[in-house]
Amino acid sequence: MRKLFQEDLHLVGDQLTDIAMRVTEAMEKAYRSFELADVQLADEVIAADTRIDAQQHDLDEKAIELLALQGPVASDLRLVVGALRMSTSLERMGDLARHIAQLTRLRFPDPVAPAPLVPVFRQMAVKDVAISKKLVELMESRELGVVFEIFALNEQINELHAGIFTTIARPGWEASPASTADAVLASRFFERFGDHGVSVARKVQYLVTGEWEAKPAR
Amino acid sequence: MRKLFQEDLHLVGDQLTDIAMRVTEAMEKAYRSFELADVQLADEVIAADTRIDAQQHDLDEKAIELLALQGPVASDLRLVVGALRMSTSLERMGDLARHIAQLTRLRFPDPVAPAPLVPVFRQMAVKDVAISKKLVELMESRELGVVFEIFALNEQINELHAGIFTTIARPGWEASPASTADAVLASRFFERFGDHGVSVARKVQYLVTGEWEAKPAR
Repeated sequence: MRKLFQEDLHLVGDQLTDIAMRVTEAMEKAYRSFELADVQLADEVIAADTRIDAQQHDLDEKAIELLALQGPVASDLRLVVGALRMSTSLERMGDLARHIAQLTRLRFPDPVAPAPLVPVFRQMAVKDVAISKKLVELMESRELGVVFEIFALNEQINELHAGIFTTIARPGWEASPASTADAVLASRFFERFGDHGVSVARKVQYLVTGEWEAKPAR
Repeated sequence: MRKLFQEDLHLVGDQLTDIAMRVTEAMEKAYRSFELADVQLADEVIAADTRIDAQQHDLDEKAIELLALQGPVASDLRLVVGALRMSTSLERMGDLARHIAQLTRLRFPDPVAPAPLVPVFRQMAVKDVAISKKLVELMESRELGVVFEIFALNEQINELHAGIFTTIARPGWEASPASTADAVLASRFFERFGDHGVSVARKVQYLVTGEWEAKPAR
């Protein structure tokens, strides 16, 4: 019985890692579709998100079944509850990649980003993809150093996000109001993706150390 | 033992209702601070959010303790897991009210909203507050009709949100790029608040129709 439970727990962990991999791929493709105004790629991301949602649903059912059949306590219980929460954040990261793809589709054949912001969005996207790759690494290795790398990447994304508002407010900003609106929304999506990555990383950290780090004020 | 568990479950339900009430108050105040550029009121919302976060944390600990000590199954288990999820959504609604207050603080003494959008934001806020009031009502009455009222309000908010983008894109839009950016962000916050309200309502609906009432108590 006990051994079976450990196997089930591993299965839940593997499913989480698998979702994190799909989320990484979703953000990679979403950003490429966004930069290249590639509507076909955007549609792939939108379609793939249904699979991420289904995987999350499966994982949650599995976790609830574990709670029901095994009645885990102490650290095992925290692990299962933690998995439920991580899957929610990962699913949300998939949604954000989909939102970026949907913006691409909405503005096609025009690109979403005003030209002066293209390099900034590229940096945000690279860091978002790095965060979700590091989540996979963290789930596989449980190396806590990775948690801090994720925090640092997210800080950089927050600065890029703030920088976009500064650029928009600066004299000489010439994009149309509609394009400005799209840029703000896109920036918010890239920024939230990082926040959810941090959420997942903090949960892994908590499960490994047993302690919550003080939540940074936002 | 069984009776104690039911009492604990009620306690969790009461805590959820209490958080929903605080969230309602937070959105009411956040919107007033936003419309009136009232920085003192904005600060109250920002400070009160710490209490919402702490309440969520307490509720989650209580729910995990219930899982550990009572090992609930079937509908009771779904109820506890549902409470964990509802508390996450409610906490996020509190964050969104805080974000609106933070925008108010950031632009003070100027108001955040460009003049032509003030009536639209007012409608969004009124509907957001109505949603969180209806969540309280739903948690207390478990009347499923309320769920559909919440869905309808959220649809209306989504339309208002889309309308803001249409207004911004229309010739004659004269707000500054910075003000346009703020308006987009604010609109997104009001819109997401409704989405989370729907999430909570759906969970109550599931618990009532799915397992809660259908299966006899253990």
